[in-house]
Amino acid sequence: MALTAPLHGVIPPVCTPLDPHGEVDTASLTRLVCRLLDAGVHGLFALGSTGEAAYLTNHQRATVLETVVTATAGRVPVLAGVIDTTTARVLEHARTAVALGADALVATAPFYARTHPREIAAHFRHLRTATGRPLIAYDIPVSVHSKLSPALIRELAEDGTLAGLKDSSGDDGTLRRLLVALGGRTGRHTGPAPAFAVLSGSELTADAALLAGADGVVPGLGNIDPTGYVRLYDAARAGDWPRATAEQERLVRLFDLTDTGPEDEMGRGSSALGGFKAALRLLGVIACRDTAVPQLPLSEESVAEVGRRLTEAGLLPAP
Amino acid sequence: MALTAPLHGVIPPVCTPLDPHGEVDTASLTRLVCRLLDAGVHGLFALGSTGEAAYLTNHQRATVLETVVTATAGRVPVLAGVIDTTTARVLEHARTAVALGADALVATAPFYARTHPREIAAHFRHLRTATGRPLIAYDIPVSVHSKLSPALIRELAEDGTLAGLKDSSGDDGTLRRLLVALGGRTGRHTGPAPAFAVLSGSELTADAALLAGADGVVPGLGNIDPTGYVRLYDAARAGDWPRATAEQERLVRLFDLTDTGPEDEMGRGSSALGGFKAALRLLGVIACRDTAVPQLPLSEESVAEVGRRLTEAGLLPAP
Amino acid sequence: MALTAPLHGVIPPVCTPLDPHGEVDTASLTRLVCRLLDAGVHGLFALGSTGEAAYLTNHQRATVLETVVTATAGRVPVLAGVIDTTTARVLEHARTAVALGADALVATAPFYARTHPREIAAHFRHLRTATGRPLIAYDIPVSVHSKLSPALIRELAEDGTLAGLKDSSGDDGTLRRLLVALGGRTGRHTGPAPAFAVLSGSELTADAALLAGADGVVPGLGNIDPTGYVRLYDAARAGDWPRATAEQERLVRLFDLTDTGPEDEMGRGSSALGGFKAALRLLGVIACRDTAVPQLPLSEESVAEVGRRLTEAGLLPAP
Amino acid sequence: MALTAPLHGVIPPVCTPLDPHGEVDTASLTRLVCRLLDAGVHGLFALGSTGEAAYLTNHQRATVLETVVTATAGRVPVLAGVIDTTTARVLEHARTAVALGADALVATAPFYARTHPREIAAHFRHLRTATGRPLIAYDIPVSVHSKLSPALIRELAEDGTLAGLKDSSGDDGTLRRLLVALGGRTGRHTGPAPAFAVLSGSELTADAALLAGADGVVPGLGNIDPTGYVRLYDAARAGDWPRATAEQERLVRLFDLTDTGPEDEMGRGSSALGGFKAALRLLGVIACRDTAVPQLPLSEESVAEVGRRLTEAGLLPAP
Repeated sequence: MALTAPLHGVIPPVCTPLDPHGEVDTASLTRLVCRLLDAGVHGLFALGSTGEAAYLTNHQRATVLETVVTATAGRVPVLAGVIDTTTARVLEHARTAVALGADALVATAPFYARTHPREIAAHFRHLRTATGRPLIAYDIPVSVHSKLSPALIRELAEDGTLAGLKDSSGDDGTLRRLLVALGGRTGRHTGPAPAFAVLSGSELTADAALLAGADGVVPGLGNIDPTGYVRLYDAARAGDWPRATAEQERLVRLFDLTDTGPEDEMGRGSSALGGFKAALRLLGVIACRDTAVPQLPLSEESVAEVGRRLTEAGLLPAP
Repeated sequence: MALTAPLHGVIPPVCTPLDPHGEVDTASLTRLVCRLLDAGVHGLFALGSTGEAAYLTNHQRATVLETVVTATAGRVPVLAGVIDTTTARVLEHARTAVALGADALVATAPFYARTHPREIAAHFRHLRTATGRPLIAYDIPVSVHSKLSPALIRELAEDGTLAGLKDSSGDDGTLRRLLVALGGRTGRHTGPAPAFAVLSGSELTADAALLAGADGVVPGLGNIDPTGYVRLYDAARAGDWPRATAEQERLVRLFDLTDTGPEDEMGRGSSALGGFKAALRLLGVIACRDTAVPQLPLSEESVAEVGRRLTEAGLLPAP
Repeated sequence: MALTAPLHGVIPPVCTPLDPHGEVDTASLTRLVCRLLDAGVHGLFALGSTGEAAYLTNHQRATVLETVVTATAGRVPVLAGVIDTTTARVLEHARTAVALGADALVATAPFYARTHPREIAAHFRHLRTATGRPLIAYDIPVSVHSKLSPALIRELAEDGTLAGLKDSSGDDGTLRRLLVALGGRTGRHTGPAPAFAVLSGSELTADAALLAGADGVVPGLGNIDPTGYVRLYDAARAGDWPRATAEQERLVRLFDLTDTGPEDEMGRGSSALGGFKAALRLLGVIACRDTAVPQLPLSEESVAEVGRRLTEAGLLPAP
Repeated sequence: MALTAPLHGVIPPVCTPLDPHGEVDTASLTRLVCRLLDAGVHGLFALGSTGEAAYLTNHQRATVLETVVTATAGRVPVLAGVIDTTTARVLEHARTAVALGADALVATAPFYARTHPREIAAHFRHLRTATGRPLIAYDIPVSVHSKLSPALIRELAEDGTLAGLKDSSGDDGTLRRLLVALGGRTGRHTGPAPAFAVLSGSELTADAALLAGADGVVPGLGNIDPTGYVRLYDAARAGDWPRATAEQERLVRLFDLTDTGPEDEMGRGSSALGGFKAALRLLGVIACRDTAVPQLPLSEESVAEVGRRLTEAGLLPAP
């Protein structure tokens, strides 16, 4: 499916269900994709951080993308994460993703290697030139340990290198400066880079991002409650901010399911991903809640806590 | 003036005008305070980071606070920053501030010394017990290099240690989780700590903070355009989000005046503080745009750029 | 070649010469390996950070390792870096490295993904179990953004998971605590993990590391002056500290060749790797000084500066 | 006492004994100073981080310095820490320290405020001009959150602003580059800044620092075992590196007394300072092991562990 308009709406970063051997559970993944599409999401982001891309082999990544593209069947755009340390390695993922039918590519700045902003710009320009697909910059300092500056993003938006930004920096003030520089809430698509899409990765401030003029949101929690995020997005588009905010607050409470793993026992990443998968298992969407090695699993007690959050949010009947 | 209700509204962190010898220019400071009050601000925060408190001697700090309290004359609450490394030193500032008539105290976690969250909690409890004034926690990781967790803030809100939070962390997602935990947008003052005030320090996402249920904003840029922030606040209170957002976007553009100093020549702090003071000088509010030693001054070229920003924002006629 | 004793001595992290198309220049790489072996180095570390492993595709990595193993012909142990984000991806590199004849594997903690120390331990245990080769932990916080604690290293040394540590943390104090815990300078190989090798990655404090009881050094600058590091090592083994220190000081001066790229124009990584390669080109060892995309190249002026450093160190005649 | 030669030798950062009310215990402090002098230390550093300067009021700081100067009675130089956020505040401490008889001043870069390297240079130049006493730069990124670059230190050494550096950065590689640039181990005092003293703050690599040409060491653990550090220094001066290293290894083991407080219960700072004070109490030097508010105290169990470390190091008879 060609991108005929800037990306927009609710674009969940799709979780990657695994079986007890650590292999991709394509049946569960297909169920998850269908549930998201039925909920009315506007796009899907496969192989992002929430999709455990950093934990998957190249072969597993291809399986994931193929499954998502097939299940989506062109109904919405599929964005493919191409996460790797530097340009040559990212390019290999990008070529596979293009061959498998991804509509757009999502790439971070180089990591592990330390690079200068001029080198980061060269990285994105190489990727754009070599793939010919819309390229989305993925700003995720918590993983990459550098921040993409608004000046760099604007330069790459204005020269056509980037078709969009997925902002997972958590720095809503800097994102706001970028949005205003690109034309602001009402002038976003008449500004200096009219076709450029700004997507917020925040589960917690989606209403604020939309108020500020973001085109869409990429919430990991959208795997669990896609209907809630679609309602939030629709309310925001309609200018009904009290309703958007009420929906957001319910989702903020639900987000507590990412924190059930004890801080002194496991990583915040494995607590969050484990929480998402435990919820999807409790909701009957996926068959197994395993996360990839070497992440530690949630305890039964933590899973019970996840269940309580689902009940409170109205997603699961009281036991 | 006793605080009879939670703090709310626009509470600018007041700049500290200096004369060419580096001493506090009390006449300019009085003019600045009067201009802010005339604009309808709801409180004043003296001796914050924007007030260059970290650059002022104890004697200069007392001069600042005395001048602000006198000029305010009880019309709005005066919050006093009590910024220092650890408890005993902060307490000395707190006692002076109480004696000079501050209505509330604003303290950070310890810095320079490395402290554990349990020690940070003990710090705030000591301050509260020893001063008997409302205590606001100042969360500013860029200066203090630790972040106050929502769990810690809630604990200290619920046991009455803290009367509020000034959030300058830039982490709007975490702030949102706190606001929801405290009752959310509509339940904020019926929640577990009903009298607790949440104030956002962000110039750039004030509309979003108010949408999320924050009680007020503490924008450094409010020194320059207090009327703009009061309009934004009033629009938000009235639920007129398109107007609040339009005002916010104008202020985001104006905020570019903090960036006129070249990055390879001076600190981001001195560029921002120099920009605020250059603007106040151009607006005729203060007599001299000097910032405290060892900050480097803005060039004439940078000051001219500040002037252009004021003109664009409608605060200064075109030259 | 089986490792019959703990690793020791000078084990340079071998640079990866590239041709103008960015492909591995195997002829230059073979010349480089032979020059290092002729200088008397005690091992070779292929595919480390200095070898630009993060910039090479899987195919290129295999070419590098095959070339190094072939050129080495069993004369010294070949260590292979297996650098990737998490366990499953690292395992794929490890299996290839074993098949190509690596004598030991060098792996970092997971990166990009955020992991807990318990998860990092699980990562190393998985790698060890699945490969059956000696496993060296690579502690490089500047790239990985977490530090391996001495307690974790000891635990994994004592249970046989790790055969050694390559310390590139720059934290010589913490390394010292580990060395003492392992038995200290004279008791190193009678201590709790007698076969455990401690290797310092510091070019600048190799003498100090050896004084403290490290078994060997892995200096990137050893690509340029392997004879110097072998002399340093031999002096240290002989207890001739004045000679070891004099050699170290000459090498510290030579290390200035890593800094010739201007800080506001290129990354510190590309300045250092570009400096190494420019030096190897000037010394006639490799055919082309290109570094991998997206690193920017050194200017001619910087290359001339590299030449002056080589001349000062006695490696190149005055022009 | 005028400094007639560069500072050198063992210069412990003197602990500040407190009474149960949190006030300076001058009798204990006098005993501690006399014990250090009796052990043959070459200087004393009052009001450093180990001296809890960040926790002391201005009045308490003056009491400390006065007590140390009086007890020292000119036998060795007394260095005074003048730790505060920015220039004007540091200058007030500096003037007091000069009046109380400090032989040299030890100042960090500004903190809390964010400053540019050019502003940090201006800070040191202001301090030097205004005080007329030898000025030592205190490089302690863990507290100040910026690192003094070797280029900056050299510039300020060569123009006479700085009389020395106290390096508590833990970055021994960078320190080595500075030492070599200043002339290296044998040319240190014939180099570009001959009277410049380089002091290492590391307890753990004092032998390495002296091997590299440092003039002296400032070990917090020197409060507990000054004789050990003096033996280490004398061995190093005599070129007896096996003896220096053996002494260092004993002291590394003793340093474990800084780690007895559990990581999930108290800060690393309070564990270390509490360990030092518990040891001094057990050795009968000070009357009370309290650390300043809001630091949490060591448990009795931790204190017992401190005692075992003292016994193992030969400083206390077995119980």
